[in-house]
Amino acid sequence: MYRSHTNGELRIENVNNEVTLCGWVQKSRDLGAMTFVDLRDRYGITQLIFGEEHSEGAKALGREDVIQIKGTVIERESKNKNIPTGEIEITVIELTVLNKSKTPPFTIEDETDGGEELRMQYRYLDLRRKPLQEALKLRHKLSIEIRKYLDSINFFEIETPYLIKSTPEGARDFVVPSRMNPNEFYALPQSPQTFKQLLMVSGYDRYYQIVRCFRDEDLRADRQPEFTQIDCEMAFVDQEDILNTFEGMVDYLFKKVKGVELTAFPRMDYATAMEQYGSDKPDIRFGMTFNYINEVAQNKGFQIFDDAESVIAIVAEDCSTYTRKELDKLVDFVKRPQVGAKGLIYVKCNEDGTFKSSVDKFYNQNDLKDWADKCGAKAGDLILVLSGDKATTQNQMNTLRLHLGDELGLRNPNEYAPLWVYDFPLLEWDEDSQRYHAMHHPFTSPKKEDMHLLDSEPGKVRANAYDMVLNGTEIGGGSIRIHDKETQALMFKHLGFSEEEAKAQFGFLMNAFEYGAPPHGGIALGFDRLCALFGGQETIRDFIAFPKNNSGRDVMIDSPSPISADQLHELNIDLKAKTEA
Amino acid sequence: MYRSHTNGELRIENVNNEVTLCGWVQKSRDLGAMTFVDLRDRYGITQLIFGEEHSEGAKALGREDVIQIKGTVIERESKNKNIPTGEIEITVIELTVLNKSKTPPFTIEDETDGGEELRMQYRYLDLRRKPLQEALKLRHKLSIEIRKYLDSINFFEIETPYLIKSTPEGARDFVVPSRMNPNEFYALPQSPQTFKQLLMVSGYDRYYQIVRCFRDEDLRADRQPEFTQIDCEMAFVDQEDILNTFEGMVDYLFKKVKGVELTAFPRMDYATAMEQYGSDKPDIRFGMTFNYINEVAQNKGFQIFDDAESVIAIVAEDCSTYTRKELDKLVDFVKRPQVGAKGLIYVKCNEDGTFKSSVDKFYNQNDLKDWADKCGAKAGDLILVLSGDKATTQNQMNTLRLHLGDELGLRNPNEYAPLWVYDFPLLEWDEDSQRYHAMHHPFTSPKKEDMHLLDSEPGKVRANAYDMVLNGTEIGGGSIRIHDKETQALMFKHLGFSEEEAKAQFGFLMNAFEYGAPPHGGIALGFDRLCALFGGQETIRDFIAFPKNNSGRDVMIDSPSPISADQLHELNIDLKAKTEA
Repeated sequence: MYRSHTNGELRIENVNNEVTLCGWVQKSRDLGAMTFVDLRDRYGITQLIFGEEHSEGAKALGREDVIQIKGTVIERESKNKNIPTGEIEITVIELTVLNKSKTPPFTIEDETDGGEELRMQYRYLDLRRKPLQEALKLRHKLSIEIRKYLDSINFFEIETPYLIKSTPEGARDFVVPSRMNPNEFYALPQSPQTFKQLLMVSGYDRYYQIVRCFRDEDLRADRQPEFTQIDCEMAFVDQEDILNTFEGMVDYLFKKVKGVELTAFPRMDYATAMEQYGSDKPDIRFGMTFNYINEVAQNKGFQIFDDAESVIAIVAEDCSTYTRKELDKLVDFVKRPQVGAKGLIYVKCNEDGTFKSSVDKFYNQNDLKDWADKCGAKAGDLILVLSGDKATTQNQMNTLRLHLGDELGLRNPNEYAPLWVYDFPLLEWDEDSQRYHAMHHPFTSPKKEDMHLLDSEPGKVRANAYDMVLNGTEIGGGSIRIHDKETQALMFKHLGFSEEEAKAQFGFLMNAFEYGAPPHGGIALGFDRLCALFGGQETIRDFIAFPKNNSGRDVMIDSPSPISADQLHELNIDLKAKTEA
Repeated sequence: MYRSHTNGELRIENVNNEVTLCGWVQKSRDLGAMTFVDLRDRYGITQLIFGEEHSEGAKALGREDVIQIKGTVIERESKNKNIPTGEIEITVIELTVLNKSKTPPFTIEDETDGGEELRMQYRYLDLRRKPLQEALKLRHKLSIEIRKYLDSINFFEIETPYLIKSTPEGARDFVVPSRMNPNEFYALPQSPQTFKQLLMVSGYDRYYQIVRCFRDEDLRADRQPEFTQIDCEMAFVDQEDILNTFEGMVDYLFKKVKGVELTAFPRMDYATAMEQYGSDKPDIRFGMTFNYINEVAQNKGFQIFDDAESVIAIVAEDCSTYTRKELDKLVDFVKRPQVGAKGLIYVKCNEDGTFKSSVDKFYNQNDLKDWADKCGAKAGDLILVLSGDKATTQNQMNTLRLHLGDELGLRNPNEYAPLWVYDFPLLEWDEDSQRYHAMHHPFTSPKKEDMHLLDSEPGKVRANAYDMVLNGTEIGGGSIRIHDKETQALMFKHLGFSEEEAKAQFGFLMNAFEYGAPPHGGIALGFDRLCALFGGQETIRDFIAFPKNNSGRDVMIDSPSPISADQLHELNIDLKAKTEA
C-alpha cells in the first residue's frame, strides 16, 4: 500500500488524520522556514507543508518528481475555494522520493507552453495535463454508458476478426503479409460490415461492438488511419426501429454523461437538407436557411443572376450595420479557392426601412423590398446572395452560412442539436469510371417505391439510408440492407457487376444470404468524433490517447519504421527502391 | 415493427393475445389437416399450428426458412415442460415468408452432424446452434461484468494503438507496410505493454483495456493468431495490491456470471508449485502431489533408481485393483514421445496389507511398506513412480498426474479452483543464444532480497512476477515493473544489452521513465481462455465468433488471399518466388 488516500480525497472532516499520499510535484514555493508543495495525481491536488526539519529534502524537489509523504491533515488558514481539497493541507512528517524527474520540455498546465510537435513527441507528458485527462475520462465514461444502454436492450457485443480479406471496393486497405501462407495477405477491416451482416444471418439479432477500424487514406486534417467505431446491427427491424433505438441511445448518453435533456431529435429528408442548408449534415443550432429568390432577382438586367440556375439568399439577423470592411471580408471569404464563388451580393435592410445593396444599379428599393419579403428579412438584417448552378451554389452557401454562424457566435459547442437525415440517394455518379457507385455500399436497400426508376433515372432512386448528425457533424450512418437474392442481383446489375464479378468479390456473403437471411439493418457511429463533440471540441486528437500525425506517423515511438532483412525474408517479400516523390 | 414478441417470451398469461412473431423454421411436422412448426430465434422456440387454410404455405416451408406469422396465443394441450414457452402455442392467422433457405449442409441442432471443416466453412450456420449462441452470450456477459467491476474501482478503459512499431524481442510480429512512408512498416501489437506503462507515467493510475493482440507464431492446437486480452496496469501499488484487486475481479465474475461463490483463492510460490506438482500452473482440484522417495527407493540394487537424481511417486487413491491391461496403458502413456519417460514403476497397496509391485525383484514387502508410508498411501491405493533428472521427471510426472486426474474424473469442469503462483524466476537460460533471457519481459522487477545473486547465480533471482491459474490453465500473468533507471540499467547489463542496444530498442520507454515514472505493475488475462473456462470447455474456438484454423486461415472468407499488383505497387513491395516448402 503506497498511499492511504488520493490527492482529490481529503476534506475538513479528515483533520488530524495521519495519511500517506503519493503523486507528482506540481509546483513548490520556498518560504524560507517552510516549503509549500502542490502534490498532483489523477484525482486532484493536495497542498503539502514541509517544516524546517524537511527543508533540505523539500527544497531539492523539482517539478514532476514522484514522491510519497506521510503527514497529518490540518485545516488551512487561507482556504482555496477552487479545489475540493482546498480547506485542508498536510503537515509532512516523512518524505520519500520515489523517482526524480528531468525538467519536462513543457509545462504540465491546462494551458501549456509546448508546441504541437513537441507535445506529440512527449505524448506521455502531454497526457498528464488536465484537459487530456478529462478527455480520456469522458471517453471512458461514454464507452461504459454506451455498453450499459445497449446491454439493457439485449444487444450482444461480439468481437469480429481484425485479420480479414482485402476487397477492391471502397477505400484503400492496410494489408498484412502472411508468413504461413506465402504471397497472401490479410487486410485490416475498414469496418466489420460483412461480419455484422453474417451475425444477423446467424440469428444474433442485436449486435454491437466498439471496434477499431482502419483506412489507408491520404490523411486530411483530423483524420486518423485507425479510428474507433460504435458498430451496430439489428434483425427483424425497419428503419423506424433503428432510428428510435439510436436516438434513444444518444438521449441516454446526454442525460447520463452531460446531464443534458435533449429536447428534440428532428428528422429531415436528404432533399430538404440539401434544399434548405445545402448540406447533408446541416447544423441546425441556428436558422439562416436558404431562400431561392430567382423569381424576384432575375430579369432585371443583372446578367450574373439572369444566367444562373439558382439565386440563393440567406439572412444574417441584425447585421445591417456591417461595415464596408466586414463585408469585404465576407466577399474575400467566398472567393477563396476552397469556396470558389465568383462574388457575393449583399442587401442591408436598414433600420429606417430603406435598403442598400451592392447591386443598387440593377435593383430599386421596391425590388429589394421584394427580396426581403421573399427571405423574411426584417429591418436591421443583412441579406447575402450567391448564384450559379444549383449544386455548386448550395455548397458555397453552406460554407458561407457556417462561417457566419461561427462569426456571430451561433454555434455554441455546449448546445446540442442532433438530427436524423434520411432518404439518401442510392447511387452516385462517378465521373472517373463513368458509372454509378453505391453511395453507401452495395448492400444498401433501395426504397420500394423508387425501384421503378432504377432503369430510367437511377440517380433519383432513394435508399433506406440515414445519417445521424450532431451540430453539423455527421457522427454516424447506416441503412436497411438488402436481404433477398432478387434485389441484390438487380443492384449488382445496376452497379455494373457481372454475376461472376459479384461472386468473386462478395461470394461468401451472397452464399450466406441463401440460407435464410432475415431482414436487417444497422448503423455505425464514429466514437472519436462523438467523444470530441461531447467534450465541446472541434478536433478528435485530444480524445485519442496516442494519435498519429498527418503523415500517419506516431512520432513518440517513431513508427512506422524499417524492419529487419530476416523479417522480410520470412514474409517472402522484397522492398522496391523508393520511387521519386 | 416486424414482431410483437420474441420466440422466448410468450407464457400462459398471454393466451388470447394476437401476436406477430419472426424467426427460423427449426422443424415442421405435417399431421395432414394441421402442420406444426417450431419457430426459432435467439430467445427461444415457439410452437406454431397451421390449420387447413394455411396448409399449402405451411407444407412448403423448409428448415431454416425465415418467416413472419400473425396468430393467436392458445393454451397447449400437451405441455412441454422443457422450454419456457412450452405451455402455449400459436394458431396462425397469417403467414409471410421473409426469405427461403437452401437446405443447410448440416443440422442446426445442439449435436450437429456437420464435421469441423464444414462447420468452419459455414460458420454463420454453425453460429446458429445453441451451444455457440450460449458461448457468445457468456462472452458478452463476462465482458460487461469485467468492465463494471473495473469501472467501479476507478479503472479507465483507454484504447491504445493497433498500428505500432516492430521490436525484435519476443515472438514474431505481424507487420503492415506503410504506403505513405515507403519501405517502412507498422507492427500489430503482441500486447499493449509499453503503452500501458506509458499511461502509468502519464498518471492514469488504473488502466484497463479488453484488447485484441496479435502473434505470428506457428500455431499449436487451440492458439489463434489474434486473441483478446484483459490488459491492466496500476500505479502506486505493490504485488499484494494487484493480487487482491484481480482476485476480487474473478470472485465477482464467478458470483455474477456463474452464481458461484469461490471459497478459496490460495497462493503458492513457484518453487512449491514445481516441487509438489511439477508445473507452474498446477490443477489443484485434486491432490496427488509429488513425493520424493529417493531415501527409501535408492541403494537397494535397482540401478535405474540408483542412477536417478529424483525418484518421484504419486498416489492414485483406490486404484490398487487396476488390471494388468490398465497398468500397461499407463506405461504406454508415459512412454509416448510427448511424455518421454523410459518406464513406469507401480506398487499396488492391496486391501489385505500386502504390496505388489513391478520391481518386486529389488524390493521386499518392508521396503514397499516404507514407500507407502513415505507417500501416505493406504491399503487400496496405487503408487506410481518415475525417475531421472529432477526437472525432466517433474515434467513427466505432471503429465501423468493430469492424465490420471482425467481418467479418474477428478477434473470436473464445473468445479473451479483458482490459484496464484508467485515468485517466478527473473531469468531463464536460453540454450540457443547461450545467455539469460527475461522470463517475463525486460521491465519485470527483481525481488530486492535476491539482487545480490544477480552476478553469482542469476538463475536463482526471483522476480515480482505472478500468474493467475484456474483449473490447471494459466489465465493470466503479470509483474511489478522496474521504474528506476539504476535497476533498469542493471537488468539490461545482465540480459547482455549494451547501453546503445537498450536505447535503440526501448529508447522511448526509457526516455519516458526519466520524467517521473511512478512505481507500477499490472497483469494481462487471456479473455478467450477465461470464457472457455467459464463455459466449462477445453477449447477456445467456440468462444470466438470467427476463429482461424491451424494454418491461420479463415476458411469462411478465404483469407489470407492474394492482393492486386496495384496494391503491391502502391506499397512499394515485390513478392519473391515461393521457396520450396
